Amino acid sequence: MLRHRRTSCRLTAQLRGTLARAARAPHCERWSHEVEMSVQNPREENMDAIDRRAFMKAAAVGGIAFSICGAQGPLTEARAQGAPLRSAAWPNRRLLDLLKIEHPIVQAPMGGHVSPNMPVAVSGAGGLGSFPCALLTPAQVLDEVPKIRTQTPKPINLNFFCHAAPQRHEAIESAWRQRLAPYYAEFGVDPPASPTRTLGPFGEEMCDVVIELKPEVVSFHFGLPNKSLIDRLKAAGCKIFSSATTVTEARWLEDHGADAVIAQGIEAGGHRGMFLTNEPASQVGTLALVPQVVDAVRVPVVAAGGIADGRGIAAALALGASAVQMGTAYLLCPEARISTYHRAALKSAGDNLSVITNVLTGRPARVFMNRIARELGPLATGVPSFPLPGAALAPLRAKAESQDSAGFSALYAGQAAALGRELPAGELTLKLAAEALQRLGMLGRAS
Amino acid sequence: MLRHRRTSCRLTAQLRGTLARAARAPHCERWSHEVEMSVQNPREENMDAIDRRAFMKAAAVGGIAFSICGAQGPLTEARAQGAPLRSAAWPNRRLLDLLKIEHPIVQAPMGGHVSPNMPVAVSGAGGLGSFPCALLTPAQVLDEVPKIRTQTPKPINLNFFCHAAPQRHEAIESAWRQRLAPYYAEFGVDPPASPTRTLGPFGEEMCDVVIELKPEVVSFHFGLPNKSLIDRLKAAGCKIFSSATTVTEARWLEDHGADAVIAQGIEAGGHRGMFLTNEPASQVGTLALVPQVVDAVRVPVVAAGGIADGRGIAAALALGASAVQMGTAYLLCPEARISTYHRAALKSAGDNLSVITNVLTGRPARVFMNRIARELGPLATGVPSFPLPGAALAPLRAKAESQDSAGFSALYAGQAAALGRELPAGELTLKLAAEALQRLGMLGRAS
Repeated sequence: MLRHRRTSCRLTAQLRGTLARAARAPHCERWSHEVEMSVQNPREENMDAIDRRAFMKAAAVGGIAFSICGAQGPLTEARAQGAPLRSAAWPNRRLLDLLKIEHPIVQAPMGGHVSPNMPVAVSGAGGLGSFPCALLTPAQVLDEVPKIRTQTPKPINLNFFCHAAPQRHEAIESAWRQRLAPYYAEFGVDPPASPTRTLGPFGEEMCDVVIELKPEVVSFHFGLPNKSLIDRLKAAGCKIFSSATTVTEARWLEDHGADAVIAQGIEAGGHRGMFLTNEPASQVGTLALVPQVVDAVRVPVVAAGGIADGRGIAAALALGASAVQMGTAYLLCPEARISTYHRAALKSAGDNLSVITNVLTGRPARVFMNRIARELGPLATGVPSFPLPGAALAPLRAKAESQDSAGFSALYAGQAAALGRELPAGELTLKLAAEALQRLGMLGRAS
Repeated sequence: MLRHRRTSCRLTAQLRGTLARAARAPHCERWSHEVEMSVQNPREENMDAIDRRAFMKAAAVGGIAFSICGAQGPLTEARAQGAPLRSAAWPNRRLLDLLKIEHPIVQAPMGGHVSPNMPVAVSGAGGLGSFPCALLTPAQVLDEVPKIRTQTPKPINLNFFCHAAPQRHEAIESAWRQRLAPYYAEFGVDPPASPTRTLGPFGEEMCDVVIELKPEVVSFHFGLPNKSLIDRLKAAGCKIFSSATTVTEARWLEDHGADAVIAQGIEAGGHRGMFLTNEPASQVGTLALVPQVVDAVRVPVVAAGGIADGRGIAAALALGASAVQMGTAYLLCPEARISTYHRAALKSAGDNLSVITNVLTGRPARVFMNRIARELGPLATGVPSFPLPGAALAPLRAKAESQDSAGFSALYAGQAAALGRELPAGELTLKLAAEALQRLGMLGRAS
């Protein structure tokens, strides 16, 4: 394997030797021909015979290939050897330097879908692993997170919601149950009682737990908690991330203390992070959103939505993002906690099988289209506040799943789900990094 | 200015001379420091004193810089000199080679919004200029297109619709006029009579005209015309393009003779090209759509939607596109034919001010949100077939505009409208190419 070394060398001999090795490196087939063309006449100290343009091309290619060859197949080996320059090839280091991580890949937290082993694997591979805590109690967080900490010394992210506690309107909830009544009848289940307690947003008690655990990153969805909580987290050394779906939200997050903004494009699976707008129709695609957010804020921007392979990562960096956040791409990993229905849907995913619907949880979220979203939505009015509709659907979901139907299940997925691969999360992270570095090298190469 | 030359050279002397020149080139400030670092000790035939890593970095940077320096500021000058390698830096040449153009930038046709001077300028600058003919009669096309041909010998694109002729349902049209009745009353205008003739799709008569004009490219929206028309166009030497909004549509287009597929993401301004689906809710963002289309078809893919500057172009190429199509970015050019309302809206555009609505024309199209889209849509049921709703709105649009309101006007815009710049179309094309090449070079450079 080729490695950068800070050693002096005799140029032409060593350079051409390097190029020759690059040509033989198994992970550089794409460039081998060009490199071989350039080193076909390796006379010492004299390259008269080599066309200048070809040489310059090869030199550029060779320079790029160093990064790529190191990154592609044998990244694991490279890391085992502690090769410190592996991540030096990334064109934007803002998030890497902020967090002291190797690759600009944030594994998205995905409430209820991530085992502690996933962030262990992702962070271990040099990305930023995330553990979703939004659906957990403080006690559960205290129980789960140490399982991660004991397995990796690398930075991790804990994720929370900061939605407004749901406003209860018995009239709305009752009317919604009425709209579901034909389904309750069809499946022979009783309408559930209106829940007395619902998922609460991030608060003081959870903040105490987080400060005890000291994750390097705390990320939020649906805005940010109040300033005193943010101040406490920052005083504990946590970097604060949150999602923006518009430029206005991105500016708000920066103004309220975010150390990085996740620009969540419309392609993203799961809940829209929107918190200053409630208008799904004007939500923005990732390709359009990211550069506008980059222009609007000074903090690093993490692109999210529709990114599932190295091409998407390279594209996000081209747009000015400092990193990407990828969720759906990790759902086929063995470390994901998903149902057999969810797994089957992901494995047969197409580009346009998902929709943004609010009928499953009360907030717009991208899921695979299913019966309830088709028949009542995808975007309905008169839906109870988040997360109340989930409880109303629970008995229908259970009964339908017992009949092998996901017609009432929230199978979260982004629009690049079809690009997903069934790999362990660490291996996937390294593969994604290698693909992206290869793609970046190709882009920078004059043809 | 630096130029590639196919000459043999003595490596180290010439190379370091080249690097030194690169360091002085005014458009390479970004790299100057690194290059100077590498050539600080230019002893002939011996670079022992030069740190190997720094040299390789500089060599790679230098190789990239050749392309960039040529492309950045003085592209016009370069073209005036006929510099043939100017476009050699593009990492994907499939569309460039297919059409013999210099830059992978297609100016989108935009029905009614493009003067003949726009494709003249864009094609003249090395992109592919497009002239929208969908709203014109064959006689008008015969009148307008020669104005382009006489001004540039470069390839051009003529664009047509191939929608199904609208199905007339008097009940639907009557009900729609009823929904508009309060507006007719408010503005004191008479409901217009139901139109007896409507915009027809591309047919035999227009095909005769096109074959006479022999544009290098004929592009379609809403599918493709029947095989006999496609065969005639191909026999005349025209390359056939059309828009796909899903992978399924892309495959269909390839199977039916398209020489390139325009993957139109949800960010795009104007009409969705959708023709095998009528479900706007599952339309796909550009970042997710392009790689999936690239994987699905063998023909070159042109990315469209949300691309308005060099970052977007670089991102599209990262995704595997062979070129981009940009529409809204050209709407502020003096060669655009837009209303003062449209221009004002574009100049104050934000990221999330547009929506996809079907109430203006009967087909989903992205426009700046306005009163009629807000109050009846954005996506309404019971809307008459394309393009009938336009006629029903005409008197409201005219009256509202006379009162300085665009509440009933279709102000087409994509989600990157805010990135638009008021430049002549040729200058804009060169600037976009230079920005993209610069961005590509930065991405390929190891930091």
